[in-house]
This record gives sequence, C-alpha cells and structure tokens, in this order.
Amino acid sequence: MSKVTLALLVGAASLMAGPALAQEAAEAAPVATGEAAAHTQYILNTLLFLIGGFLVMWMAAGFAMLEAGLVRSKNVSMQSMKNISLYAAAGIMYYLIGYNLMYTGVDGGYIGSFSLFYALDPVGLEGADAAALLDTGYSTGSDWFFQMVFVATAASVVSGTLAERVKLWPFMIFTVVLTAFIYPIAGSWQWGGGWLSEMGFSDFAGSTLVHSVGGWAALAGALLLGARKGKYGADGSVNPMPASNIPLATLGTFILWLGWFGFNGASQLAMGTIGDVSDVSRIFANTNMAAAGGVIAAMILLQILYKKVDVTMVLNGALAGLVSITAEPLTPTIGESIIIGAIGAVLVIIVVPLLDKLKIDDVVGAIPVHLVCGIWGTMVVPFTNDGTSYATQFIGVISYGIFTLVCSFIVWGILKATMGIRVTEEEEYMGLDKAEIGVEAYPEFGIGSQRV
Amino acid sequence: MSKVTLALLVGAASLMAGPALAQEAAEAAPVATGEAAAHTQYILNTLLFLIGGFLVMWMAAGFAMLEAGLVRSKNVSMQSMKNISLYAAAGIMYYLIGYNLMYTGVDGGYIGSFSLFYALDPVGLEGADAAALLDTGYSTGSDWFFQMVFVATAASVVSGTLAERVKLWPFMIFTVVLTAFIYPIAGSWQWGGGWLSEMGFSDFAGSTLVHSVGGWAALAGALLLGARKGKYGADGSVNPMPASNIPLATLGTFILWLGWFGFNGASQLAMGTIGDVSDVSRIFANTNMAAAGGVIAAMILLQILYKKVDVTMVLNGALAGLVSITAEPLTPTIGESIIIGAIGAVLVIIVVPLLDKLKIDDVVGAIPVHLVCGIWGTMVVPFTNDGTSYATQFIGVISYGIFTLVCSFIVWGILKATMGIRVTEEEEYMGLDKAEIGVEAYPEFGIGSQRV
Amino acid sequence: MSKVTLALLVGAASLMAGPALAQEAAEAAPVATGEAAAHTQYILNTLLFLIGGFLVMWMAAGFAMLEAGLVRSKNVSMQSMKNISLYAAAGIMYYLIGYNLMYTGVDGGYIGSFSLFYALDPVGLEGADAAALLDTGYSTGSDWFFQMVFVATAASVVSGTLAERVKLWPFMIFTVVLTAFIYPIAGSWQWGGGWLSEMGFSDFAGSTLVHSVGGWAALAGALLLGARKGKYGADGSVNPMPASNIPLATLGTFILWLGWFGFNGASQLAMGTIGDVSDVSRIFANTNMAAAGGVIAAMILLQILYKKVDVTMVLNGALAGLVSITAEPLTPTIGESIIIGAIGAVLVIIVVPLLDKLKIDDVVGAIPVHLVCGIWGTMVVPFTNDGTSYATQFIGVISYGIFTLVCSFIVWGILKATMGIRVTEEEEYMGLDKAEIGVEAYPEFGIGSQRV
Repeated sequence: MSKVTLALLVGAASLMAGPALAQEAAEAAPVATGEAAAHTQYILNTLLFLIGGFLVMWMAAGFAMLEAGLVRSKNVSMQSMKNISLYAAAGIMYYLIGYNLMYTGVDGGYIGSFSLFYALDPVGLEGADAAALLDTGYSTGSDWFFQMVFVATAASVVSGTLAERVKLWPFMIFTVVLTAFIYPIAGSWQWGGGWLSEMGFSDFAGSTLVHSVGGWAALAGALLLGARKGKYGADGSVNPMPASNIPLATLGTFILWLGWFGFNGASQLAMGTIGDVSDVSRIFANTNMAAAGGVIAAMILLQILYKKVDVTMVLNGALAGLVSITAEPLTPTIGESIIIGAIGAVLVIIVVPLLDKLKIDDVVGAIPVHLVCGIWGTMVVPFTNDGTSYATQFIGVISYGIFTLVCSFIVWGILKATMGIRVTEEEEYMGLDKAEIGVEAYPEFGIGSQRV
Repeated sequence: MSKVTLALLVGAASLMAGPALAQEAAEAAPVATGEAAAHTQYILNTLLFLIGGFLVMWMAAGFAMLEAGLVRSKNVSMQSMKNISLYAAAGIMYYLIGYNLMYTGVDGGYIGSFSLFYALDPVGLEGADAAALLDTGYSTGSDWFFQMVFVATAASVVSGTLAERVKLWPFMIFTVVLTAFIYPIAGSWQWGGGWLSEMGFSDFAGSTLVHSVGGWAALAGALLLGARKGKYGADGSVNPMPASNIPLATLGTFILWLGWFGFNGASQLAMGTIGDVSDVSRIFANTNMAAAGGVIAAMILLQILYKKVDVTMVLNGALAGLVSITAEPLTPTIGESIIIGAIGAVLVIIVVPLLDKLKIDDVVGAIPVHLVCGIWGTMVVPFTNDGTSYATQFIGVISYGIFTLVCSFIVWGILKATMGIRVTEEEEYMGLDKAEIGVEAYPEFGIGSQRV
Repeated sequence: MSKVTLALLVGAASLMAGPALAQEAAEAAPVATGEAAAHTQYILNTLLFLIGGFLVMWMAAGFAMLEAGLVRSKNVSMQSMKNISLYAAAGIMYYLIGYNLMYTGVDGGYIGSFSLFYALDPVGLEGADAAALLDTGYSTGSDWFFQMVFVATAASVVSGTLAERVKLWPFMIFTVVLTAFIYPIAGSWQWGGGWLSEMGFSDFAGSTLVHSVGGWAALAGALLLGARKGKYGADGSVNPMPASNIPLATLGTFILWLGWFGFNGASQLAMGTIGDVSDVSRIFANTNMAAAGGVIAAMILLQILYKKVDVTMVLNGALAGLVSITAEPLTPTIGESIIIGAIGAVLVIIVVPLLDKLKIDDVVGAIPVHLVCGIWGTMVVPFTNDGTSYATQFIGVISYGIFTLVCSFIVWGILKATMGIRVTEEEEYMGLDKAEIGVEAYPEFGIGSQRV
C-alpha cells in the first residue's frame, strides 16, 4: 500500500505547489488508491482459494477413509492405495493438460484450446510487476491449486463404486483420461465460460460438474466391470458384504463434511468485499445444514423402514445432503437448505436398493450419493435462485450425463478389451491387497482378510 | 474500498474547484474512509469466525473418534452414530430455536425472547446495503455458524459418559432439548448479555458455558442411567472395560486439540486490529501450552502413582488442559497456562477413581475432563485476570450447575419414565451395535464384539 | 485504519486553513498511511502464522497415525503415547529455553544468547502501544507458535525410527535435549541469522534444519539402540515385520501432506503484499505436486522392481516428495517440483533395502524419507534458485550432519550408559504396550499383540 502513501504525499505536496501539481494529484489518486484497494482484495481472494484449496485437498483423505472403512478388510490396502494415487495423478494430469483445456480460450464453445503445462506467476513480484497481477483479482497459483483439488474430487467418486474387483493400473489409466480430458472438457462448458454458461446453466460448486461427472464415470465402470462375485444370487437375493471399519467410514464422512466448507465456500471465488464474505458465510451455514438435514432425514426414514438405524446409510445421508446443496449453496435459506439436504438423503435410501435390483454393484453407494443427488441438487436450483430455469438446468444435467457416460464407456471399454479391468476370480476371493498390493491392511486382526 | 478512491478523487478535485468543494471533501472523507477501514475489519472478523467455526466443527469428529476408540468394539457403531447425529440435531435445533433464545433481547435478564428460525444476511449485498451490515462488525452468518458449532460441542460431552448402555432415540431427544433450550437459556445469561455478564462473570470461551454445562447434563444422565452391567462388583471392585482402539482415541484427542485453536482463538470475536490479532496469537500459544502441561503432568503423575503411563489418561490430561484454559486463554502467560493445564490434568487423575468409588460410570471420563476442569478453569480466572472476582466466578459456576443439573434431571427423568433410556440387559451384553444400529463396527476383526 | 481517516480529515481541513496546516498534513500523511498499510499487513502476516501453525501442529497427529499404523499392534499404544507426549514436551522446552536460544542475539554466530522463558506480546494493546508492534510485522505470539510446531516436527522424526524397542522415558529425555538445545542451536545458524545464513546457505522451510536434523538424531539413536530382535537373521536375511494398520498409515500420510501446506506455505513468513501471497500460492502448488510426483514415481518404480505396489512405500514416496521440496518450494516450476519429488521417492526406494543391508533398523523409513530426502532437497536448491551455490549448500548439509550426529551420539550414549535406552528382550517380545504403557491398543482384535 506504499502507493497510497505516495498519493497522499503527492496530494499534500500539491497543496503548497499550486494547481499544476494538484492536477497531477487528481490523476494519480484514483489509480493509486484503486490499486491499494484492489491489492487488499487480491490478497483476501487468494487466501480464500488457499484455505478452500487445502480443505478440498483434505477431502481426498475423506474419500480414502470412507472407502477404506466401507470395503472388506481384504481390500483395504488397495482402497488406500487408489485414493492417494488418484489424487496424485489428477494433479499431474491437470497440470500437464487439464487446466488449460478447461480454462483457456473456451469462449462460449465446447472445448478449451489445447496447450501443455500450466505456468504459475513469477516469483517475488514487486511494484509494477505485482500491480500487473491485479486484473485477475487473485494469484493464479491459488486458483490453479483450488481447481486442481476439484478434479481430484471427481476422480475420487469413481474409486468407491468399483472397489473390491477393479485392477489397479487400468483404474489409474482411467483416472488419467478422466482428469486430463473428460472432466476438463466438460468443465469448460460451464466454468470455462463455454456454451452452457452462456445459456444460463447454474452449478455453483459442482453438483453436476464434479459429483455427477464422477458418478456417471463410476456408473459406466460398474456396468462394464460387473458385480462382485457372490453379491447377487441367481435367485435375485442380495448378499450383504459388510463394511470392515465403521469408525473409519465415520471419520471419512466428517473429513468430507469439513472439506465441503472449502468446496462450496471458496467457490464464491472472492471474499474481498462485505457482500462476498457475507455470501461465503451463508454458504458455510447452508452447507452445514444441508448435511445436518441429510443425517436426520436418513435416521428417521431408516427407523421407520427398517426399525434399525444403519450407520453407513446415515453417513451417506450426510454426504447426500452435501452433494445436494452444492449446485446452489448461496441462495437458499437455512430452512430450505435443510430440506434440500433431507430430500437428497431420502433419494439415496430409495436408490440404494434399486441399484441392487438392477444388479449394479456400487460398493460404497457413490452413485446414489454423487450422481443422483448431484442431479437433484442441480434441478432444485431454480427453486431458490430466480436467475435460473428448470429447462436449462435439465439441458445441463443431460448434456453432462451423455458426454461423460459415452466417453467413460469408450475408455473403460478399450481398457477392458485390451489389458482387462477386472482381477481374476481367485484374486477377488483372495482380496486385492494380496493380489495387487502385496500388503495386507490388518495382518494381525483376527481372521483378517481370510474370512469374508 | 472504491469509496476511498472516490473520496480522494473528490479531495483532489476540490483543490482546483475552491473552498466550496473542499468543504464537501472534508465531510465526505471521514465517512468514506471510516467505512473502508470498517470494511476490512468486517471481512477479517468474519474470516476469523469462519476459520474458527470449521475448526470447532472438526471437534465433532474428534469426539466421535475419541469415544469410538474408548468404548468396547461392540458399541463402536453406536458411538459413531450418536456423534454425527448429535452434531446434526444440535445445528437444526439451534437454527429453529436456540440461537434466538440465546442472543435476542436478553438485556441483563435470564432468558432471550423466543422466536422461531434464524435468518441469514441477504445474498449478494452491495453499496449501501452492504455498508448497512458494518454495524455488527462481522457477517451474521459467520457468527451463527460459529455459535452453532459451540452448542454441538456441549452436546458431544454428554455422549461419551452415557456410552454402552443408553438408547439411541432418548439420547437424541435429550440432545434436542439441550441444544434448543437448556444450553441457549443458560448461555444467554453470559454471552447473550444476561444477568451474569452484568454481574461481571467471566468465561472467555466456555469452560463453564460449554464444557461444564455438557458435564452437568452428562452427570444427571449417568446418575439416572446407572452403571454398565458388571462394571462395579458387589464387593466394591471395579471391573476395567478397556478401550478397543487406542490410536483412534489418540486421533480424536489430536483433532480436539486442533479444533480448540478455533474454539478459544476465535472467541476473541475479532481480528481486525493489531491488538485483536495479537490477542488471538496469545490465545493460540496459551491454549497449546495448557494442553502440553496437561500431557506432561499426567505422564509424570501416572508414572509415580502406577509405574505405568496409561495412554488413555494422558489423552485425558491433554483434554483437561484444554478445558482448564478455556475460561481464560488470553491473560495468562505461557508459563501460567502450562500450570493451569497441568493442575487440570492432576484433577482428572484424582477424580476418575473417585467417580468409580461413587459408582458413577463415566465411560470416557467426560465428567472429570469437562465438568471438573470446567469448574477449575472458571475459578482460576481471577488468578490472571484482574477484572474478575472469585466470588462472581463462584456464583456463575454454581448457577450453571444448579440450572443444568435440575433441567437435565427433569428431562432424563421424563424420558426414563416414559420411553425408557436404557437398553435391556441382553442388548447391553450383545452390544448396542447389533441391538440398535444393526451394523457391527469391526465384523472381521477376530472375536470382535462377542468377547468382552 | 482510523489514522487514514485522520490524515484525510487533516488534509481536507488544510484546504481551508491555508499553507501552515497544509504543511502539517504533508508531514502527517506518510506516517499515518504508512502505519495503516503496515497495520493490515501485520494482521495478514500474523494470520499466515496462525493458519500455518495449526496446520503444522496437525502434522503431529499425522506422525502419530503414520507410526501407529506402521508398527505391529503390540506397540501401537506406545507409539501413540510417544507422539502426543513429544509434541507436548517440545513445546514446553522451546518455551523454557529453545526459542530464545535460536532467535536472540545470534548475529552471525554459532549460538543464541541463553535466556529463560519466552514472553508474549501484552494483552489488549491499543493506539500507540499497538502501533509499537508494527516493526516486527507480525504478532510475536503467532511467530512463536509457528516456530514451536517446527521443533516438534523434528522430534517426531526420531520417534518412528526407534519404534518397538526404545524405552519411554529415555526417549522423552532425548526429546527434551533435542528441542531445548540441539535443534535450537543448529537452527540459530540459519534461521536465527547465524554464520550459515551469512554465508548464503538456503533452506526455505527446513529440509535440512528440521527433517535432516530429525533424521540424524534418529540415525544416532538407531545405531546405539540396535535392531529389533529377529529383524535380521544371522544368514543376512531380513525378516519383514508388517505394518498393523494400513489405512491408519494412509491417514497419517494425508495429514502430513495437508500440514505441509502450512509448513512450507507459511515459511514465506508474510502474505501482506501481492508478491508475498502469490509466492505462498506458488509454494502450495509446488508442495502438492512434489508429493504427487513422489507418489507416481514410487508406484511405477515399485511395479517395475517388484511387480507389486507396496502401499507403505507409496506413502513414503509422498513424504519423500514433501521433504525434498521443502528446502526450496518457491522457485521451481510445477514441472520441476514434480521431478524433485519423484527423485526423492526413487532415493527412498533405493535406500530402504540399503539400510537393511547395513542392519540399521528404521521401523517406519524415517531415515530415507527425512534424512536422505532432506539432503537431496537441500542440494538441489541451486538447480532452481540462482542466488545459491552447491558448495554452500554442501557445507550446510555437512555441518548440520556432524553437529547433530555428534550431539545425538553423546546424549543417546549417556542415556544408554546410565538408565538404558532399550527394553528387555522379554518386554520387546511382549510388546511395549503391555510393558511400558499397561494398555493394549486393540485388546479385542483377534490374536492382537500375541501373534507377531
């Protein structure tokens, strides 16, 4: 803010020097103070991205714990492995290709201009060089970091559905394609300033762009991969394969809940004004209460339907609420947020047995939570946001669905036809931990991976 | 900060336009820049609530992990369930009733004015509408979020004490009453500007208002619920029921320690000035060191008394330190903070066997940690804070004790007389996970829930 | 910012009062606005330390979970115990002695001036008293908190290497000496403004000062302590002692990864200017991508070498990337960061079997990760930072190595000669949990601590 000092010095000096200098001061003042004001905003906006970014990064740990807790113990090392490696791969692919594809030169179109590598702002900028950054309103590095953790979230969704039978390397290759091409191209339509954003589609923090995209990709994989051996009996029975570690899944849910404040809150993209930071506050409150609504709705419905309150379904209720509010966490009242989240949880409890009827084996319930609630959250936006229309929301939902499903089928299909995407029956029985990782998750815990 | 720009423009222009305009500038300047300054403070204060709020929200995960780690494995799903659902219920009740009851129209009295629903600031404020918010000094949504996570903390305390025998739904109903009425009414006396705050009572971040209130409510429940079957022998012997997962309890303690920086730090309520942010820094340092003092004091005392260092008691030592410093984390020196925390830990190690002698079965030690250290922390405030008196602190402690204990006895009593608060002996033996949740926490881990 | 208001008032008033007052305004303005600007910077810099500080504090939980997951279940309570108690002890010793020794009166020398106790800024400063703090640019309490969590990190490194056979109290005494004397004296050479910083040595966030120092101390301990019974056969065979809880180790790695944003990011020490906050953003991106590079490099190399992807080695790959980028997280491009991290991971995978060949038993791989990658990260600084030289970096690496190794040998040696540092063979077989803590980590999980 040394320019303010300068401006005032110049201004004060001009009092003594006469009209000529005074005119100089009149010209200098707006620029100087405009920069100073923008300067503080720049720092605060950047800080929002950094805080939001590390919270969303933390969601990778949340997915890891949730999924490691929900699979059987013979597949826990594999699930831990996949979740840390997909986060790493997503970042690298987004750096190499994805970010530029999503955000450069989209201009109302269907795809960004392809360019390799993302470059950060130079080091240690000062004076005019620093001021030159003001136009963006935030550090480009902070924006990149924030966008990068989002692509990782989309990839995380896929991992849970395909658990307990997918091979490691084909999964990694799919992740590479998803994060380098599918997610960024689809994302460019809306957040890159593409055709859907021009049409008025609205998805604040990614119910569709992140969660449904992940969900569609998971659905394609689940269909091509098939159910786990023994999951569905020939007589239509469903064989429960219980979660191996409930507190770990609970921890994962709490981590995701925490991370979601960054996911939704920092999607305001700015907190340098009273209006922006008050909006971020609304988003925090609404995001929390949608999850709370999901929890309570799930508990009550489960008690009514089953007389027992399955904790894994309650955890999914919390996540359902979070995904549902993500397309519009700003405009609802707290009460509306609770209801939006609660309906999301009800949808999950309805859809989980439905998928089993269709013999679509979704190990952790990621399709109901991320795909179904992603659609629900996107379609309910016009209920609280006057600037949107149900028709456009529907076009967006369908477009993302078709594009992601088709692309995912092609990629999973090629992988299946070439290297294969599924472990052998013997390996599946033995557990992926021994087969692919060589490390048991809990070698000393009783019968461990031999039992189920 | 565009108003600063305007003011300077006006000011500079006035140099050329003569005295008339200059007078306008003189009038415009203080208002404009006053707003600009307040504007930045508003953002920073709001940010403090948001960061503090998500850290305290994270404490819900800490309680979940701590308690899930300390109970036997047959009750771990239940404990996970209760901790996520009480957090959800607390938020909803605080939105529906609690917040307004605590913070509106208390005016030195004993209760706020009852009004349904809490409303957030409008969306997307700009210009004069945004400036109208400046009087509060922070976004109301951020304040609501921050206060809401506090009521959840009080509810979390209760959950641990009553573990392994309380029924799910009566516990939820008690949580509803606690978070909608008991905590908010009691809270209004001090933080709502009620009679105790007028009297000069001092409880910076809630040793009494949050932790003791939770502790009294837990004590009432424990007395009406009775001890776990087999815990106390007819001959006065105490049967240890060991924690099922020590690293999980350790994780919970670390989470709580981390969250406490938000709990105490953001209770400064502002960081828009040098003085405020320096005070927040003091609070961070003191909070950390009280916990550190608790850990080391517990270790040394345990070694002396028992020749072994029971890690669960050391974890409680850390929490004892944290609760003890919460009533006054600002005025002590680091050295005083270490001592205050250390004495808290000593109290816990003394009180735990005392409760067992009284056959009050507190599964996780929440009464010694939150109630006893909450009292200790509150009573020691005048030792470092000259503006307070031991007499007033004592009146506050007693008042909160009587009110919370009486209310809690009534609510627990009604629940016991109507729907019952305790599972059957058979269910208790089988474990609450099977009886109430239908999901075992660790179905594959050896003998699992069948053993203890 | 009320001084800006004042300055503008004075300035505007001077327009009407004539040249005499105008001169006053000319003098008042720069001071006033200089303070105002510095005021906002002070708050933002302090906030960076507080956020960075709580993230690095959280790394203590990361080490606890990582190590508790990697040891066998009979030693998990001990590992949990050591990690929370070393964090507490580190803080207390740094308060009593360490901080002052590291940061007061070093002046190009080899050691700070010894003085007891660290004092925080006074409470509730306002006006001129508050302005007097501006020279430091941040609250001293926030700086102390941030530096304190760093010393705890160094101590955490030691804990993992010596797991499963070191006695609790000698370990605590070593921690006391390390955090009160060894780390602070060594740290004074560079961050305290000592001889190495004058020579031009560069270690941005502590690849050498924190991680190598911890690594050297661990190496000295490992050499004097000897390997676990049965680890190395007389025939040169290496007996694997598998990790007991892989998702816990994964969680620990994610926690460390998250905390590292504070570790490296807040080591920029300021975010009150566009340049600084943009640099912090670069650091966030680079830190993340070095870890990502470590993960992917480890996966590929493990697949090539062993045809299985050992998840514990992949976790160490992430940590290797993080340690490697820590000496210079600012100047590399994202691509260079990926490569630096990837090479770090390769080094770990090479060094782990090498240590086994030398019969140095490092239970969690802390020496390869923190010592080897600490050296690698420090030596690669001149590759991207023109202001540094390989020769000076080498001098720094060697100096820290010799000093820490010699001091550590002396302290461990004295402890070994007096109270002994190793449990008995029987206790080692039984497990440290029963022998030293008296609390089993997983009493209900199958064969538990009896098996391995």
